Amino acid sequence: MTLKNLNRLHEIQKTLRNETLLIEEPLHLFYLLGLDISAGMLLISSSKAQLFVDGRYLQVCQKKSPIRTVLYSDEEFKKFGPSLYFDADHMTFARVEDLKKLGFTLMPKKDPLLPLMAVKEKGEIEKMRKSIALCRKGYKEIKKHLKVGITEKELALLFSLFTLKHGAILSFDAIIAFGENAALPHHKPTTRRLKKGEGVLIDIGVNMNHYASDMTRTLFFGPPPSFLKEIYDVVEKANKSAIALCKKGEKIGNLDQAARKVIAEHGFDEYFVHSLGHGIGLKTHEYPRLKSGGVNSEDLLQSGMVITIEPGIYLPQKGGVRIEDMVLIKDKSCEILTTGF
Amino acid sequence: MTLKNLNRLHEIQKTLRNETLLIEEPLHLFYLLGLDISAGMLLISSSKAQLFVDGRYLQVCQKKSPIRTVLYSDEEFKKFGPSLYFDADHMTFARVEDLKKLGFTLMPKKDPLLPLMAVKEKGEIEKMRKSIALCRKGYKEIKKHLKVGITEKELALLFSLFTLKHGAILSFDAIIAFGENAALPHHKPTTRRLKKGEGVLIDIGVNMNHYASDMTRTLFFGPPPSFLKEIYDVVEKANKSAIALCKKGEKIGNLDQAARKVIAEHGFDEYFVHSLGHGIGLKTHEYPRLKSGGVNSEDLLQSGMVITIEPGIYLPQKGGVRIEDMVLIKDKSCEILTTGF
Repeated sequence: MTLKNLNRLHEIQKTLRNETLLIEEPLHLFYLLGLDISAGMLLISSSKAQLFVDGRYLQVCQKKSPIRTVLYSDEEFKKFGPSLYFDADHMTFARVEDLKKLGFTLMPKKDPLLPLMAVKEKGEIEKMRKSIALCRKGYKEIKKHLKVGITEKELALLFSLFTLKHGAILSFDAIIAFGENAALPHHKPTTRRLKKGEGVLIDIGVNMNHYASDMTRTLFFGPPPSFLKEIYDVVEKANKSAIALCKKGEKIGNLDQAARKVIAEHGFDEYFVHSLGHGIGLKTHEYPRLKSGGVNSEDLLQSGMVITIEPGIYLPQKGGVRIEDMVLIKDKSCEILTTGF
Repeated sequence: MTLKNLNRLHEIQKTLRNETLLIEEPLHLFYLLGLDISAGMLLISSSKAQLFVDGRYLQVCQKKSPIRTVLYSDEEFKKFGPSLYFDADHMTFARVEDLKKLGFTLMPKKDPLLPLMAVKEKGEIEKMRKSIALCRKGYKEIKKHLKVGITEKELALLFSLFTLKHGAILSFDAIIAFGENAALPHHKPTTRRLKKGEGVLIDIGVNMNHYASDMTRTLFFGPPPSFLKEIYDVVEKANKSAIALCKKGEKIGNLDQAARKVIAEHGFDEYFVHSLGHGIGLKTHEYPRLKSGGVNSEDLLQSGMVITIEPGIYLPQKGGVRIEDMVLIKDKSCEILTTGF
């Protein structure tokens, strides 16, 4: 447990007045307390914090928890009532009902950790750089194996094995798509074999020291069909046009709009079938969602956010191209983190 | 998509009258439709079913979905209103609020798929046997590497690599604990090295063709300290006493009670700090939770349920023992699936 992590708890406490907030999401317990446990109930008020755990985690928490931690019991827990704020974005409807049955008056709070978690600290960015560095190494490793006859599954397995051997885990199942399979944005690797002159879409990421990476490249294995070269150039232009807007204060929806405009100018708008990208950090998919007209399209980019920019064009039965970068937002510009791929 | 899977949808339809039920949990979409997608909205009424997906999954669903599948739009979706039942155990409070804003009247339904999913079909049990068989092979493989100086992490990595090379994934991060580390029920593997005369707790499982396995053995690496042998015998007796009760119609809480009674008779009750076990299937942890006095302790075992029986004794700073089996409930007895470990 580092002091830095307790600072996060203090930041949340500053947002509270006479409220008590309940946090149960395991990733949030890790973010606030540095504890890697699959279940726990953290109660936070402006001046106090206490963690309840079950028997599986009591010993380890009594040793490692930076705050008072006790074994859960209804009686002890109820003392923190009668009113509780809860994280409406991470608690199920049934869980809220169960807590009501314990006698609590429950009040929803929209994702209370989001503003803090969306802006990465320096230490977090360093960890993300390391996660990207490992992903880069893995990418170079599997590129060596691109040869006629290899299957998508074999390539995905090589990346998985590389990741584990280097002390990390996958941040998501690798998407490896040859030829026409790249027309499916979330293709699952198959036993389809690579042929000369095909596109190879590689969307991979690792999770190292709790932080995720995520990037996509589309390669040509030998001279590509002309349609593939054409959409590649459009997607690359769309990627660059969105990145050019990346800086503090820019409206989030504008990035998606800029990329979509480039793609539409070339007549491919109906084939860019997903949003432009997403925030990334402890999770592969975090706030914000980069979509014009979407739920946070009016929000502004902040310094320290890390987002993906991943436009794509997918031509059914023919093939597809996606180019995805991770981008760190700065005051007057941005830094592309996924260089060297 | 097999007919078997559509039968499941029909079973859910039989439970509905004039209601429309919304299912969004990806694992439930897989269970009902055989589709492996990370997001989708399935609407089921007694006579109809329709799936909404986003652009990422439209192509693949139009090819593979066994029911009508369309691109999501608020307008099309709203036609299914104004009343919707939703799965209260899998939908967040905020998601329910968002649907209300679309004009729906929303009514909670407690985990509507649970009764169906808790009882495994023959085909599911066959898949679970295969998942266990791979876990068994992996267990034998890593046992060969037990030698003075190997670390917990190295052993865990060997199991991960074995699993991936055989086309499966981990169903959970392996728990490998040497000596005193086994006193922590959910220990994370460290760089601690194995010494002669220590206990080795191995809690592993794989997920193969979507079905999970989960089993624990505690080995002695050379002659163990006498306390370890003593608690081993008690845990083994507790495990057997619970399994002896396993058959259709038995009250679920009784299993935990039987195991706990054995452990208490030997004076170790305060060191059995978790519940006896859990259901397992597509997920590693499913209904029911085996805990006397717990939320489903009054429910009865049914033929076709698969549960884990995993009593343990954990002596802080000294060590621990857990013995976990997967058990298939039958009409008049049960079958231990995790034999040969």
